[in-house]
Amino acid sequence: MGNYDKSNELFSRAMKVIPSGIPGHQSPTLLVFGSSPCFIDRAEGSRFWDVDGNEYIDYMCAYGPMVLGYKHPKVEQAVRAQLDKVDTCNLPSERYVELAEKLVEIVPIADWAIFGKNGSDVTTYACRVARAKTGRSKVIMVEGCYHGIGAWCTSMTTGIAPDDQSSMLTFDYNDTDGFMRLIEENKDDVAGVILTPFHHEAFHESEMPKEGFLEAVRKACDDIGAVFIIDDVRAGFRMHMGGSVEKFGIKPDLICFSKALGNGHPISACVGTDAIKDAASQVFFTGSFFTSSVPMAAAIATLDEMEKTNAIGIMYERGEMLKEGLYDQADVHGQRINYTGPEPIPFMTFDTDDGWDRAKVFCQECYDNGVFFHPFHNWFISAAHTEEDIRKTLDVTDGAFKRVKAEMG
Amino acid sequence: MGNYDKSNELFSRAMKVIPSGIPGHQSPTLLVFGSSPCFIDRAEGSRFWDVDGNEYIDYMCAYGPMVLGYKHPKVEQAVRAQLDKVDTCNLPSERYVELAEKLVEIVPIADWAIFGKNGSDVTTYACRVARAKTGRSKVIMVEGCYHGIGAWCTSMTTGIAPDDQSSMLTFDYNDTDGFMRLIEENKDDVAGVILTPFHHEAFHESEMPKEGFLEAVRKACDDIGAVFIIDDVRAGFRMHMGGSVEKFGIKPDLICFSKALGNGHPISACVGTDAIKDAASQVFFTGSFFTSSVPMAAAIATLDEMEKTNAIGIMYERGEMLKEGLYDQADVHGQRINYTGPEPIPFMTFDTDDGWDRAKVFCQECYDNGVFFHPFHNWFISAAHTEEDIRKTLDVTDGAFKRVKAEMG
Repeated sequence: MGNYDKSNELFSRAMKVIPSGIPGHQSPTLLVFGSSPCFIDRAEGSRFWDVDGNEYIDYMCAYGPMVLGYKHPKVEQAVRAQLDKVDTCNLPSERYVELAEKLVEIVPIADWAIFGKNGSDVTTYACRVARAKTGRSKVIMVEGCYHGIGAWCTSMTTGIAPDDQSSMLTFDYNDTDGFMRLIEENKDDVAGVILTPFHHEAFHESEMPKEGFLEAVRKACDDIGAVFIIDDVRAGFRMHMGGSVEKFGIKPDLICFSKALGNGHPISACVGTDAIKDAASQVFFTGSFFTSSVPMAAAIATLDEMEKTNAIGIMYERGEMLKEGLYDQADVHGQRINYTGPEPIPFMTFDTDDGWDRAKVFCQECYDNGVFFHPFHNWFISAAHTEEDIRKTLDVTDGAFKRVKAEMG
Repeated sequence: MGNYDKSNELFSRAMKVIPSGIPGHQSPTLLVFGSSPCFIDRAEGSRFWDVDGNEYIDYMCAYGPMVLGYKHPKVEQAVRAQLDKVDTCNLPSERYVELAEKLVEIVPIADWAIFGKNGSDVTTYACRVARAKTGRSKVIMVEGCYHGIGAWCTSMTTGIAPDDQSSMLTFDYNDTDGFMRLIEENKDDVAGVILTPFHHEAFHESEMPKEGFLEAVRKACDDIGAVFIIDDVRAGFRMHMGGSVEKFGIKPDLICFSKALGNGHPISACVGTDAIKDAASQVFFTGSFFTSSVPMAAAIATLDEMEKTNAIGIMYERGEMLKEGLYDQADVHGQRINYTGPEPIPFMTFDTDDGWDRAKVFCQECYDNGVFFHPFHNWFISAAHTEEDIRKTLDVTDGAFKRVKAEMG
């Protein structure tokens, strides 16, 4: 078993001065607590090193942001060059216009872009734009879907005011009939519909859109004059450079990006069509660091490099290699697994794994041997993952399946 | 008049690809549009240079974040050292614990800290914590007060859902009687009260707390068991290292910081007392970049340097020098001015200045001569402003008052 002494000691210090120690999705209590790291010392390419010096091939990619590899030379060169000039100031720099123009160039539906810091900033903004555009109040979302920590959408409602979700209507993912009933019953009140490009909830297998589902949403929005919003915060720039639902030939009205956009530098963006630009400009949207130049320089360099190197193609290839390897190994070791989601954003679950016990044993064996997966949350592949990384990973996962079989049959 | 050709050209490009060109508080249409810059090329110390090469002594400090000077060597050294190790990853780095410990050390009320990116993140979080702590729903705020872009507080309500502000109760700043009536009428429902340390609304003179006002709020919160929140996002680390209301001897339960905390690097924090820590840990609070290490390294270096150099003392001294100089000049040129707010966060308004015309003429003359003030929004002094900067500034403002008198009497 790995040594996590320094991680555990730092976590004890964190518990004293931070509520929950590490709150939110990065809580080490969501890993295999005690048998996994809590704090990181450094990262490079597809690897990170925890504070105890353990090295990992990383399949979480900072929960999405890292898409070209940690400390990618071209991105970091752009970051340092911009740090030498200006980051946060009274007005934006030229990078601000350049990045908006770049997004308009590469995202087919985008006639404009606007920038924030968090995914929540832009998903919340998009719903306001839908209301401003339509003069209606209701927004339809998938029950339990994660669109950030906004009071309007969160399923973790401690401290939320009683009426904060009163404008939301929910249905089950891929339930086209249920969605159409909501539309029928509320058509005069529906401002917009917000969906992720596929369904990627923690503690659940991922689910791709059924044939006809996204098309039905697009048509219903057109029919009633509602705004179709895609929350591409988690999946963006891993499935398609032009927004993930381009992969399915769907054209939403607004797309929200964040995470991978700046390869780890903090930025989010909402892009939209000209038809919605006037409404978008009526919604007040600002923050102390929304025009900071360094993350914009990082985003421009990230998008350029992804285009030049066919980064998404590489992620699909590596993801396919990992998927095939894991399916083969599961078969050899008599484990029934479900491998869901697109190849660059996969999630492996054990069939009939009550309490996620098999997933925890599998992940613990991987942590002990230098591979970082998550038991309950979808994984991420980056363009920095080499074939050699995948081979090394599969050496480790073979042992992990063996241990699952030995311990749990 | 200054040359703003490149600024104006870039703004035209921005208008094509970004709603409103530059949305929010940084919109150049809120300056003296056409006679002031729209885009910045570089910044250093107390100065910035716009894209046309015009140099300015800066009295907006990025609307607050810049507190030690742009590109402060010690802060930037810490930033680069951390960039070499890790920024955004799957888990935080040691910087995360160190920064929380540092805030607990320097802020008297703080037993713990939690981190976000925007001011809005933490003001919104603080209200949720107040509800979690009390099991009540109502939050009292000052009418029209700016606490960020949260739906619960914004006065720019386009796109806000109908019920988003139904849990808020408002009163006029410094109206202790009005506040006490709200408390009396709603005491079983009030979860918390949120105030800025002084009243600093754009388009208004700043207002300091009247004697007894903050004390009355503190006592009322104690009496009914409500949580007293200070939104120190704008003023934090300019009036007192331990939170601005320490200056008045007041102990709130929660304080929200952002802006100056990282000297321009994107971070926000909420700190609180032990009595509220359990409630705080029940509120879900997370974001893709909330544990990023680089802004934490920047914040640690900023706080260290501020302590070592008595940065707040310097800001008060420079602010006092500017204030006295401007009052003297106003007198000489027969202009009646109001100079409000604490010296490090001052605001100068012309008495009976309908339409802010005198302020605009004053600012335009300053822009033309290399000094950056804002006509409608409070200003900021930094520890990088030297006595020589203030003298040079006063040379320029003398001409600005002269022009106001020549044009407007």
